Amino acid sequence: MTDMDALAGRLSDRLGPRGIIREPALLERYLSEQRGRYESVAPFVARPATADEVAETVFICAEARCAVIPQGGNTGLVGGAVVTRDRPGILLSLERLRHVREIDTVGDTMTVEAGCILADIQEAAREHDRLFPLSLGAEGSCQIGGNLSTNAGGTNVLRYGNARDLVLGLEVVLADGRIWHGLRKLRKDNTGYDLKQLFLGSEGTLGIITAATLRLFPLPRQRATAIAAVRDVPAALALLGLTRARAGGALTGFEYIAGPALEMVLAHVPGTRAPLAERHAHYVLIELASEDAETSLRERLENILGDAFEREFVTDAALAQSETQSEQFWRLRETIPEAQKPEGASIKHDISVPIDRIDTFIREALERAAALAPGVRPVVFGHLGDGNIHFNLSQPVGAVTADFLARWDEVNEAIDAIAVGLGGSFSAEHGVGLTKRRALDRHKSELEIELMGRLKAALDPAGLLNPGKIFD
Amino acid sequence: MTDMDALAGRLSDRLGPRGIIREPALLERYLSEQRGRYESVAPFVARPATADEVAETVFICAEARCAVIPQGGNTGLVGGAVVTRDRPGILLSLERLRHVREIDTVGDTMTVEAGCILADIQEAAREHDRLFPLSLGAEGSCQIGGNLSTNAGGTNVLRYGNARDLVLGLEVVLADGRIWHGLRKLRKDNTGYDLKQLFLGSEGTLGIITAATLRLFPLPRQRATAIAAVRDVPAALALLGLTRARAGGALTGFEYIAGPALEMVLAHVPGTRAPLAERHAHYVLIELASEDAETSLRERLENILGDAFEREFVTDAALAQSETQSEQFWRLRETIPEAQKPEGASIKHDISVPIDRIDTFIREALERAAALAPGVRPVVFGHLGDGNIHFNLSQPVGAVTADFLARWDEVNEAIDAIAVGLGGSFSAEHGVGLTKRRALDRHKSELEIELMGRLKAALDPAGLLNPGKIFD
Repeated sequence: MTDMDALAGRLSDRLGPRGIIREPALLERYLSEQRGRYESVAPFVARPATADEVAETVFICAEARCAVIPQGGNTGLVGGAVVTRDRPGILLSLERLRHVREIDTVGDTMTVEAGCILADIQEAAREHDRLFPLSLGAEGSCQIGGNLSTNAGGTNVLRYGNARDLVLGLEVVLADGRIWHGLRKLRKDNTGYDLKQLFLGSEGTLGIITAATLRLFPLPRQRATAIAAVRDVPAALALLGLTRARAGGALTGFEYIAGPALEMVLAHVPGTRAPLAERHAHYVLIELASEDAETSLRERLENILGDAFEREFVTDAALAQSETQSEQFWRLRETIPEAQKPEGASIKHDISVPIDRIDTFIREALERAAALAPGVRPVVFGHLGDGNIHFNLSQPVGAVTADFLARWDEVNEAIDAIAVGLGGSFSAEHGVGLTKRRALDRHKSELEIELMGRLKAALDPAGLLNPGKIFD
Repeated sequence: MTDMDALAGRLSDRLGPRGIIREPALLERYLSEQRGRYESVAPFVARPATADEVAETVFICAEARCAVIPQGGNTGLVGGAVVTRDRPGILLSLERLRHVREIDTVGDTMTVEAGCILADIQEAAREHDRLFPLSLGAEGSCQIGGNLSTNAGGTNVLRYGNARDLVLGLEVVLADGRIWHGLRKLRKDNTGYDLKQLFLGSEGTLGIITAATLRLFPLPRQRATAIAAVRDVPAALALLGLTRARAGGALTGFEYIAGPALEMVLAHVPGTRAPLAERHAHYVLIELASEDAETSLRERLENILGDAFEREFVTDAALAQSETQSEQFWRLRETIPEAQKPEGASIKHDISVPIDRIDTFIREALERAAALAPGVRPVVFGHLGDGNIHFNLSQPVGAVTADFLARWDEVNEAIDAIAVGLGGSFSAEHGVGLTKRRALDRHKSELEIELMGRLKAALDPAGLLNPGKIFD
């Protein structure tokens, strides 16, 4: 057993008075997570302020054989930054590493420390007339280190890719406390294994990201947003194909909203209005964006929608006539999770399937959900262009919440199995953490779990980095 | 020592008469490589026809403790598919795995076997009105398995990324002969470590890619091509910044051509003509492409060039007026290596640097080259938008070729060191193989080489896959 008082003393000597938090009242916000599903049992939080201090912290912990659980903005949805009783350890918060080290407008790169808030990074890029495209609900409080270690997705993946795709270089503290200096600004570098790929998306189990060199993009000069009603999911996919063929690189968003999901928003989110005169069973939100200020994107989207109307993919559509209206349209999509809350508890899924299987997935999942939990109210929406559906289930009207939530695992298991059976994933963008470890055991091949284990053993032989996350 | 006759017998029993080649006359094209720098010493070539046969071949070789050196189209430039005397083994050609397994035009993916020729893949995509954007000089004979295992670059990286970025899933034969079935069609999948990243770019040292699921893109409907004369390299970079800001996702090519490189093309390549009325010291070739057929790209590029002219980034420019002229412009760029041949031997480099260091690199490298080899004639060109410069040096007029080439290593060492000193890479797109192993030893940190070694040991503990490539 590690002597935690002695360890805290050693770390406090190195990191200074601000480097360790032990007071229960101050610890609270690191120990509890937003959905209240987990409570960490860490004796203290280490708060190093530099990469060197992170390295020293990890080194000292490794000497004491104490596990280190890295934590960014604590906004994750799968318990990836939680200390559990069966895998004791300390929390290491990256929040004090928050310098923007460099913005390079010739090479269009930006080097930031792990604790920088995503929205601050977006803003710093914008001040230099550049776009950092990663964008997601938690952007006001999540940290880039967490975004990268979980390979975050969000609403701009269709055009710019996942977090992984936005990284040119990393600085990483390894399990033994050494620092890998892999901050590079190169678009092309074929000199051996691409080590940064290992740390991106591995949820802090192979190393702790302390800084990253990110790709920047030209700032779009205009956008065009529309909401279209479609007959069914196949029609939505036909519209996706048409839009992609005609707009290509300008297509930045293609989101699906099932009728009942929109109804919940209209019922519960103040200031929202139905985008179309009549109500429909299926909607898509389309966005085009372009660096070119000269030719009208709105006109281009209007032509595409006109064509789609003639081909009967689309039954009605509204094109945003202003930036304000664009924002109103997006708000209809982004407030769906919030609108579910007044309707009671919700069992959630974050699945992806090959795009040509989305219709099959939704049909089979609806059927299975209705059979498992009669009266359940499906709230289906998501990043259709990425094959990523948030298949949420609000509790039946009048149901006892606890009884409904007791079925979480059973329902998850059934819906995940449909996705995986169609060649899909049980976690498209949220990661595995603690919550989906069982799903990983169930759905990954033995060989794949073995290979992951070999990588873990190669980079963290003592198992001290975020133990018990992703897999045991 | 492995009994090679016994091994050949066993493999021949499994793979059938077409599965093994032993006759010297037939072996020749597998054993020698195009630049004549290496000659393989393999006793035979195994030619499995399916992934299962590749797995059996590797399993049988592993039992016999015989190394396996995978080979695609044998077009690599660094000896990555060569069997050396000090690391004996057999060649495994993927050329019989050449089925296109699926083209999915809803999800825009394509699943192909490793032996498919790149140009055939491009063509199959085009027949379905889609683009597979990987494009490079050897596309008529290189194979996709080789492209992926070396993370090939080429002329479309600026917009579509390197080979790594074009892959959604892989099927890989591991060192012990098991098959990892990782063919997925998902844009988002955060379920543990991204294993495919390990095999992409690792030059066959961690596993043998047998099939891949690739991303397809909408086919561009128009392109606009221009050649512009710029005062100097900083002006070229200013033009790059302007074009990127104005054209963004439409910018597909931004190539640099130094005056002397263009002169060699005009002197030696039949049918080429100077693109501008006068001769200049620095040129760039710019290409925009778009899926949108309605608004004129040519007009857009003309506006950008007009603006660049006013700002004095550009001193003269010609905009291609037809598809034929676009092709003529590209030919001036693509025939540079060919045009160097009549001028004698050439010492080549494939470096990359951060984009804001390109000018410094070129100036320092020119100075160093002139000091090391007085009279040497620099032929400088490359993918400026990616920071990737092919810094080639033609022998001095009247020099003895053998004397000049004897200095290859010394010159490489000096030029690579300048690039690496500026935060760059000694191999931007060609890989390491045998040729750049020494450079890797010299320029990579010990920690990085150690981490690579740990990954190698984790995935190929007996060291049987392409031994001696990348590192020892």
